[in-house]
Amino acid sequence: MERFQQNPILSPADIPPALEGMTVESLLNPGAFRFDGKTWLLMRVAERPEQKPGRISFPVQRDGKVEIMDIDVSDPELDARDPRVISYKGSDYLTTMSHLRLVCSEDGIHFYEPGEGYGPIFGSGEYEGYGIEDCRVAVIDGLFYLTYTAVSRNGVAVGMMSTADWKSFRRYGLVLPPHNKDCALFEERIGGKYFMLHRPSSPEIGGNYIWLAESEDMQHWGNHRCILHTRPGRWDEARVGAGASPILTDKGWLEIYHGADRNHRYALGAFLMDKDDPSKVLARSSEPLMVPETPYETGGFFGNVVFTNGYIKDGDRITVYYGAADSVICGAAFSVNEILAGLE
Amino acid sequence: MERFQQNPILSPADIPPALEGMTVESLLNPGAFRFDGKTWLLMRVAERPEQKPGRISFPVQRDGKVEIMDIDVSDPELDARDPRVISYKGSDYLTTMSHLRLVCSEDGIHFYEPGEGYGPIFGSGEYEGYGIEDCRVAVIDGLFYLTYTAVSRNGVAVGMMSTADWKSFRRYGLVLPPHNKDCALFEERIGGKYFMLHRPSSPEIGGNYIWLAESEDMQHWGNHRCILHTRPGRWDEARVGAGASPILTDKGWLEIYHGADRNHRYALGAFLMDKDDPSKVLARSSEPLMVPETPYETGGFFGNVVFTNGYIKDGDRITVYYGAADSVICGAAFSVNEILAGLE
Repeated sequence: MERFQQNPILSPADIPPALEGMTVESLLNPGAFRFDGKTWLLMRVAERPEQKPGRISFPVQRDGKVEIMDIDVSDPELDARDPRVISYKGSDYLTTMSHLRLVCSEDGIHFYEPGEGYGPIFGSGEYEGYGIEDCRVAVIDGLFYLTYTAVSRNGVAVGMMSTADWKSFRRYGLVLPPHNKDCALFEERIGGKYFMLHRPSSPEIGGNYIWLAESEDMQHWGNHRCILHTRPGRWDEARVGAGASPILTDKGWLEIYHGADRNHRYALGAFLMDKDDPSKVLARSSEPLMVPETPYETGGFFGNVVFTNGYIKDGDRITVYYGAADSVICGAAFSVNEILAGLE
Repeated sequence: MERFQQNPILSPADIPPALEGMTVESLLNPGAFRFDGKTWLLMRVAERPEQKPGRISFPVQRDGKVEIMDIDVSDPELDARDPRVISYKGSDYLTTMSHLRLVCSEDGIHFYEPGEGYGPIFGSGEYEGYGIEDCRVAVIDGLFYLTYTAVSRNGVAVGMMSTADWKSFRRYGLVLPPHNKDCALFEERIGGKYFMLHRPSSPEIGGNYIWLAESEDMQHWGNHRCILHTRPGRWDEARVGAGASPILTDKGWLEIYHGADRNHRYALGAFLMDKDDPSKVLARSSEPLMVPETPYETGGFFGNVVFTNGYIKDGDRITVYYGAADSVICGAAFSVNEILAGLE
């Protein structure tokens, strides 16, 4: 594994805010794909209202408009200890609102904003009022499918869109109900069916595990099975979640995933699923493939995080794009064969 | 509304335990249906190991066998304050293990165990290791469909079976991933599609709300939409969940649901969905239809609970079967027209 020397390749200062009165707090966790002869990233851009002294301000979308909630820091009903989630009067809000933004590149390292028509993709409607996040991009039957975290007062769930041209989108609503995220589609059918990985969470009993689901039409999902648990006392003891689409190899479907420990350190690992029956996990990383080490990974908005949901594959080489410290976007090159050789 | 004078109609002493070394702790929340000219209930039977002084014992199913966990009450890693859920060494367990049991009746009041072949229905496999609970029974396309809470170390999710004869069952696995329960199927298609109500829960953001999902084949579900929220400061402020299948009336689909407040008092209410688009809630109970009042509802294993997931309809009259205090099974008669007239 080799990090780009140019890391971070994208930082908040590189991208203008999409909404008036807001600043770009972070660039996070991009989906990645090839289109029109270029490499594209679909970044998550988290924007935050300007903060005034003694106040906490956070954005909420209502009836298609973004409103700013503005609370005195000494309000006893406010809990703002977590930099990501605010609790106020018994309800939870996000400190930032995320949308999705396209950038493209000829070399996969230097990215720029594409021309007219490739506008920001905002959350829309009742299930995306707190924004949309961490979008995976899969190519299935010649269409791009976007699966992303849809956040609203109703909960954290998985939304889906498709597009052929990245200018117009078909929206399918929520394909998975709350609490769910980290949804990665398989890019090929297996036994005639579509498959996805997803990551539900529970308020009690169970945990933050990776599940498999299947579908006949990409819109309706069933036969949910849990295929990867957290491992007590290890680097992925607290939560695991899929990255981007599984990579089809001679040995099976290879998935790069994130694992977090009790201290919220997010690292990357991999596991291998049976080619014909992906509910069978054949092997898994004992040690992480990548842990937060560099200053841009250990510092930042929410430090000690490397998180991926996008890669570009070119033979044995995969370029993994990842969010570092919930702040900036980075890249690193991996060898598929080396990852496979390191699994247990 | 009129409670049966004979309440409770079924108590733990009426039913022998299904598993050796266990006692029947509670009878709970039955599904209800008509079959073979009789009224049937599909009860949830919660069994518990005999408790020894100074110890806490609870059951876990592993590899098809029930094992008894037996912990010293003074173990610092044990938290047994909740009568329903035990926390031990960072994992959650249920104090009891539930299975489903059939009883039948000529008059809908006096129930008895049916003859040979109508055996207990146990949880099975990786997703039902802590038991199966609170089964709804719907009749769709001439088959009985059972939707129930499947509990295991993987989480709390919704399983489905179907049967024509109540002797052999087809199992569909989990139709909804964790954390989810209170799944009620619509007994007729709307616009060619199947619909269900369900109740996901989240560890953060969102709440315990009633959602609607749709399907083309009953096995794969999508287009999840939140249709009923809790109401702050009211009797259903903490959680709401569907009862049994919605009742088709001239005014729309009528659903009897449970609502709980911050003190875990469970009461019953109703709401009305549009006939052609059940995502539209047209009206809702301002005050509960029924609250725990009688000694068998206010006392018991987990007091102050009335909870229903089964009814028998006969013209305007519906006989609602309900679990009281997570202990015994009761009945009450309602008028559909009176419920409709009381909605706001």
